[in-house]
Amino acid sequence: MTELLLKNVRPLGGAKVDILIRDGRIACIGGDLACGDPAEDGAGAIALPGLVEAHAHLDKSLWGMGWHAHQAGPTLEDKISTERRLRRELNIDPARQSARQVALAAANGTTAIRSHVDIDTDQKLWCFEGVLATRERSRDVMDIEIVAFPQSGMMIRPGTLELMDEALANGADVVGGLDPCGIDRDPKGQLDAVFHLAEKHGKPIDIHLHEADELGAFSLELIIERTRALAMRGKVTVSHAFCLGMTDRARAHALVEKLAREDIAVATTAPASRPVPAAAELRNAGIRLCAGSDGIRDTWGPYGNLDMLERALFIGLRNNFRRDDEVEYALHICTQGGADVMALKDYGLREGAFADIVLVDAETVAEAVAARPRRKLVLKRGKPVARDGQALFTVE
Amino acid sequence: MTELLLKNVRPLGGAKVDILIRDGRIACIGGDLACGDPAEDGAGAIALPGLVEAHAHLDKSLWGMGWHAHQAGPTLEDKISTERRLRRELNIDPARQSARQVALAAANGTTAIRSHVDIDTDQKLWCFEGVLATRERSRDVMDIEIVAFPQSGMMIRPGTLELMDEALANGADVVGGLDPCGIDRDPKGQLDAVFHLAEKHGKPIDIHLHEADELGAFSLELIIERTRALAMRGKVTVSHAFCLGMTDRARAHALVEKLAREDIAVATTAPASRPVPAAAELRNAGIRLCAGSDGIRDTWGPYGNLDMLERALFIGLRNNFRRDDEVEYALHICTQGGADVMALKDYGLREGAFADIVLVDAETVAEAVAARPRRKLVLKRGKPVARDGQALFTVE
Ligand SMILES: [Zn+2]
Ligand SMILES: [Zn+2]
Repeated sequence: MTELLLKNVRPLGGAKVDILIRDGRIACIGGDLACGDPAEDGAGAIALPGLVEAHAHLDKSLWGMGWHAHQAGPTLEDKISTERRLRRELNIDPARQSARQVALAAANGTTAIRSHVDIDTDQKLWCFEGVLATRERSRDVMDIEIVAFPQSGMMIRPGTLELMDEALANGADVVGGLDPCGIDRDPKGQLDAVFHLAEKHGKPIDIHLHEADELGAFSLELIIERTRALAMRGKVTVSHAFCLGMTDRARAHALVEKLAREDIAVATTAPASRPVPAAAELRNAGIRLCAGSDGIRDTWGPYGNLDMLERALFIGLRNNFRRDDEVEYALHICTQGGADVMALKDYGLREGAFADIVLVDAETVAEAVAARPRRKLVLKRGKPVARDGQALFTVE
Repeated sequence: MTELLLKNVRPLGGAKVDILIRDGRIACIGGDLACGDPAEDGAGAIALPGLVEAHAHLDKSLWGMGWHAHQAGPTLEDKISTERRLRRELNIDPARQSARQVALAAANGTTAIRSHVDIDTDQKLWCFEGVLATRERSRDVMDIEIVAFPQSGMMIRPGTLELMDEALANGADVVGGLDPCGIDRDPKGQLDAVFHLAEKHGKPIDIHLHEADELGAFSLELIIERTRALAMRGKVTVSHAFCLGMTDRARAHALVEKLAREDIAVATTAPASRPVPAAAELRNAGIRLCAGSDGIRDTWGPYGNLDMLERALFIGLRNNFRRDDEVEYALHICTQGGADVMALKDYGLREGAFADIVLVDAETVAEAVAARPRRKLVLKRGKPVARDGQALFTVE
């Protein structure tokens, strides 16, 4: 039995308490607890549940590889093909780069990651196997869920489906998909295949949907229809769902209600540059909303740092959240929201839950989001994995 | 004669050089310079020209006053009246709060600030006098330009115009204005008054224009007409100009061309939550574009930190800038762009210019924007004013 006593912390900005951690779980939350084992003094820091990065691409990123001057063209297709070419040219090794990102995420207080991982007929299972290896090596420090993601298209690249099938048989947790119209040019074919894989492997689905306006709405309807027909209620996530930001708000709202009926979740990055789903509208409809960094510093673009406290800020800025309860909801999306979508068991700041805890110096949760202070201490199942913004491990 | 030698720095990410500073100006940029006076080793850091905060509200902000739970209603009018009430209730002292912001801005590498300062019939010149006092006390560390800003309206609050007139006679540098339709309900009356004040005092103009779509376009046309009629070409700035983000891109572009003809500048915060002017479109039209933080952590909202490197990131994200040259332009808006709008003399990283210099550890300028590293050293006219993210002075 191992114990750790976290003294003088304020769960979600509330009153000061002690948290007793036993065998990786929160054993007790209360005043003036004592134990014989080591103690950490939080000195009044806010305790947050571990941040959840619900949409990452651990197989990408040039993090730690020196600056890369960005050169991809403006279209999605340009970015996809540029990346396929540069992966080998620059040796963007998925095992190494995912390991670096796990350390970076932990340093920023993230304790669980859902990562899409490219599967295509060029890389085959290289990316998947790299991230899988990192997952194995990181078991103690990070929960990682792998989405088998057909980044280069599924119908337009025969052989991709079989590779995804193989990945799903060998440890991938979620069936991915991508713009069934825009990229695959065959929405019925692609979505039937995606849902078939999900049925076959008994696994959930997470589909990238960048398609805008009425085209995205059409694809979304096809996803909703299949979710209902195959009784996959609660098992499907749509990432981005930009079409929900469409100008026709009545049309968007009708789609939101349909999503709610099938309990289809939405993952957002809250990008500033294009219309996106309105977080408050989704919350009011009861839709599970989670967030992620998407690719960081990769061949697609220079931004990103896997900081989910900063992502909560972006959600707040994007949605014009100003009141404290609104800003707290932005953080909720990056904590409990992600946990709900990943179906993380025993998550949260409560007795019995896993002790995935982040300490930050701030007066309120809203201040923590606005100021994004360095993470003072990050615990994964009760063990310190980062301190003062630095990971305490390497998995490279 | 005082000298300082800045060794091993890379101006805008270029090759390593030394910069010799003499009497507050850049005397020489070259390889292996030497002088008898103290030297700072930049150790390969990037040297940027001092960041320019071209749209701030130094009289606002609760920075350092403890967290304030935000309670203002959703409309602009709610926020204005809530603020007027809370200023006195919370004792948001403009002298103290502006001093704190000057230190914060300097810590983040800003060396010049244009601040709007509220003038209304409740506060009268309290805010103006407070910021004026800070400006006097900060002469050595920060260039501050004061805009006499009728935050609560000018036509709807008789007496405001006279107070603005008084401020302009006593040290205010720029004539402010605000939503001539939306707030003042009398666009002709307000804009005639604003331009009359500018003529009378021989000072430039900076007008907040939040009005969207066709309403903002109408107000913008009135501004353009008066700029031309009064030969104020190059002397007018429009802050926000949200209407330039209107859906009708042909209409917006026609407005952009008219702005260009009168050399009317635009100040942006690049907000994520609403349509805004497209930075690339303004650049292509030859319009001077600058940026600012707007109010930070005030009664309007919880965000902001006066970090213009972060503002450059927001501009990049908002405009979907991904290539290095685009990201560099985002930073240009926050440096030279601001200097152009404030008409700062002898600005820039060149021999003869004032030695307003910021050092950051990054490989490229684009990386500096993406990662926003702590400012290693900030020089104002050759004197260190901040180091490792901390101001070296207080002006409270
Ligand atoms: Zn993605
Ligand atoms: Zn403003």
